[in-house]
Amino acid sequence: MTPPAPLSESALQALANAAGPGNLRTAPGDCWAYGGDNSRLHAPPQAVIFATDTAQVQAVVEACRDRWIPLIARGRGTGTTGATVPDRGGVVLSFERMDRILELDPDNRLMVVQPGVTNQAVQDAAAAHGFFWPPDPTSAAYCTVGGNLAYNAAGPRAVKYGTPRENTLGLTAVTGSGRVLRTGVRTTKGVVGYDLTRLLIGSEGTLGILTEAVLRLTPLAEGKRTLQGIYDSMEAAARAVSRIMAQPVIPCALEFMDGQAIAMIRQYSTAPLPEGAGGLLMIEVDAPEAGLAEATERVAEAARGQGCLSLTQARTQEEVRALWATRKALSPALRHVAPKKINEDVAVPVSRMPDLIRDVEALSREYAIPIVCFGHAGNGNIHVNLLVDPDDPRQMAAATPCLERLFDRVLSQQGTLSGEHGVGIAKRDYVDRELSPEALDLMRGIKACFDPADILNPGKGMPVQPSPLASRPGGA
Amino acid sequence: MTPPAPLSESALQALANAAGPGNLRTAPGDCWAYGGDNSRLHAPPQAVIFATDTAQVQAVVEACRDRWIPLIARGRGTGTTGATVPDRGGVVLSFERMDRILELDPDNRLMVVQPGVTNQAVQDAAAAHGFFWPPDPTSAAYCTVGGNLAYNAAGPRAVKYGTPRENTLGLTAVTGSGRVLRTGVRTTKGVVGYDLTRLLIGSEGTLGILTEAVLRLTPLAEGKRTLQGIYDSMEAAARAVSRIMAQPVIPCALEFMDGQAIAMIRQYSTAPLPEGAGGLLMIEVDAPEAGLAEATERVAEAARGQGCLSLTQARTQEEVRALWATRKALSPALRHVAPKKINEDVAVPVSRMPDLIRDVEALSREYAIPIVCFGHAGNGNIHVNLLVDPDDPRQMAAATPCLERLFDRVLSQQGTLSGEHGVGIAKRDYVDRELSPEALDLMRGIKACFDPADILNPGKGMPVQPSPLASRPGGA
Repeated sequence: MTPPAPLSESALQALANAAGPGNLRTAPGDCWAYGGDNSRLHAPPQAVIFATDTAQVQAVVEACRDRWIPLIARGRGTGTTGATVPDRGGVVLSFERMDRILELDPDNRLMVVQPGVTNQAVQDAAAAHGFFWPPDPTSAAYCTVGGNLAYNAAGPRAVKYGTPRENTLGLTAVTGSGRVLRTGVRTTKGVVGYDLTRLLIGSEGTLGILTEAVLRLTPLAEGKRTLQGIYDSMEAAARAVSRIMAQPVIPCALEFMDGQAIAMIRQYSTAPLPEGAGGLLMIEVDAPEAGLAEATERVAEAARGQGCLSLTQARTQEEVRALWATRKALSPALRHVAPKKINEDVAVPVSRMPDLIRDVEALSREYAIPIVCFGHAGNGNIHVNLLVDPDDPRQMAAATPCLERLFDRVLSQQGTLSGEHGVGIAKRDYVDRELSPEALDLMRGIKACFDPADILNPGKGMPVQPSPLASRPGGA
Repeated sequence: MTPPAPLSESALQALANAAGPGNLRTAPGDCWAYGGDNSRLHAPPQAVIFATDTAQVQAVVEACRDRWIPLIARGRGTGTTGATVPDRGGVVLSFERMDRILELDPDNRLMVVQPGVTNQAVQDAAAAHGFFWPPDPTSAAYCTVGGNLAYNAAGPRAVKYGTPRENTLGLTAVTGSGRVLRTGVRTTKGVVGYDLTRLLIGSEGTLGILTEAVLRLTPLAEGKRTLQGIYDSMEAAARAVSRIMAQPVIPCALEFMDGQAIAMIRQYSTAPLPEGAGGLLMIEVDAPEAGLAEATERVAEAARGQGCLSLTQARTQEEVRALWATRKALSPALRHVAPKKINEDVAVPVSRMPDLIRDVEALSREYAIPIVCFGHAGNGNIHVNLLVDPDDPRQMAAATPCLERLFDRVLSQQGTLSGEHGVGIAKRDYVDRELSPEALDLMRGIKACFDPADILNPGKGMPVQPSPLASRPGGA
């Protein structure tokens, strides 16, 4: 990525005025630190501004809008698609200082937060009143709620409790026009006006910059039980998933690993796994204590069946940790084997998972790239990890056609290219395989309504087209 | 409403061609029958077309688009806001013949339907596989899924299971441009592209005409228990609602009636109600059989407390019917007393319900209009019924200022003007009290993206403004 021309003195002065004292950084080292996320993409912005409140964000948007300077909102940079990487330069607006919980209202099961608050801080505050907020990405300890909303990021609990779209009541945002928009309601029902709340959620900072969110809270379940099922094949495990999802007790986590993942763990950790294990399920069931044993047994019954080698229920917290240790050994093992692995997060209808896993195995053989699959089985959300060796030019060359074939298989199985990671830069050239020209045209039209100058995270989330503003002055 | 000029011969011919043999009606009697809904508003369309499939709907949209003829999609006309009343003339597109269930996929917990299928038919088909679709408006036996989606119509179960927005995976729609749009996914997670599915849901036929929907199914609970709580005041009942909603067992119905409603029932039915009853709750708890008794007791514990005169649990199906008989006696009693009652469906945060009920009582005294409140307490969704006598000019004149005051109170309590009925014609002049100019401008911009000729249910759901197309030829 070629660095864009530096911002003019007058542009910098306008940004400094808008940002307020102490909130603007332009030193190369500072800019470098805000140029990346958890993808391998990196491009430093020309300036970093720390957001402080809605009025200041509005002033910053206006300064950028009037000068066509790209403006990229950023939480903590834990995204995996480059969505916050300023590949066209511009200003990164960091929300790390706008991290307060403004209101906690247990009577109405809601919490009002600034977008820079971490997911963990929300969980801790909610838990003190017996509640939680369902979205739980792996990075929950560090990632921000603003980022969770921008990506519609979920995690294991989504299978029972939904994604941010099902757990957010309203938003405050500054549009690319510089107007402050309040959406949604403080009630769990509301049908006045179009659903702008869900439209903003998952729009990756391209429609508005979130400055406040009303989160819907859910009561914590009293008890939880953990099961681990080991199967002779991924097909058998996937059939068990279908059986589990067809009975009334929905587990609060239903995670899987395929045979390749199990082989990897066996090699790099001491977690005990029987020979012949071709698929593994981690299952959690939550319920009031009174019905918990019975609910767990219902799920266990569905988890057993043809191809089930073992089904273990943890009896103590120590056993819970031991069962999860297998799953937790996977990521370090993968990083050890392939530090530059490519991680996709496709999703297919639950019943199509065995077919897709078979397809992945065939692609792995055909392109001679080791591929490991794991993920959120209850949502059919499969993390497909291509363990490419960056020093092997053949593998690197094969990765792209292999991914393209994977995406075609996913779409032919009525799936989606991303269940929770989003599009950003990484997948923008593929989304037109999933979205029709009609949908893309409407998305571009909606984008133009919210952000007529195309300054909000321009070029993310959609196929890049020659911009009608290509000849715009650019930060002058 | 002044009848619009008749359609020209050439327009009628184009509509006939698009509709296909036997699908166009223009006789005044036919048109009359499709001119009303369950509001008191009525205006006959100039033609009625029976939708048969997506391609035909597309052809009809094109014919209307090219001639600026308003096109209003209609299910069974059970809406209460006039949203399907063709107040500017044009064509009503009736979906009563497009009522098939196209696919039932229990393994993936989904069902694909045409929009004219009744809610009841969906429930029956799903129940045969142990599932249900949560939205359950009172009119479920007759209303269509297309209508449920157009209004985001809910019902009692929403408190636990959500509205159509939480229970729909994807849609097929024809936009006002005449393009076929497919939105969403067949998986329970998906983050590719903006959320056009939820944008269409609740848009009252102004953005696109739905021709297919992928519904997300939920497993039927094994068992259900019914409780009736009677309180000495509506405040005491509302405090019980807050306590119930703050503990982990969410009831699958939590309905209320205020003292006025109880007085009405006592007068017009034989349902047994103790003296001094000022508020009543109907509570249903569903769960797997094993935990049901305990779950019910948890809710019952929360329902008891200061001001609780009695809490009765039904032991048999006969007792369930007897408890619900009280609630079911209300609507006939109201119709008997005030056949032309005005029914609003405002919603406020649950903890604000006592305040709002007090406000309503004050308004009732001030304007000398009897007002009865009941509704979905778990969502704070209050059906405020003004029992106006149409022969009393003083009451009729007082109704509008009384409603305006009510809406102001609702908004000052952080509520919304409609929890589930929608806007249509009835509330369009009030929505700018709730929605900001920024939100309304964005809604108008989005509407123009989907429907540039403004033919899809024009003038509904938003404040009417002088149209930029006011001088358009109009069906010539």
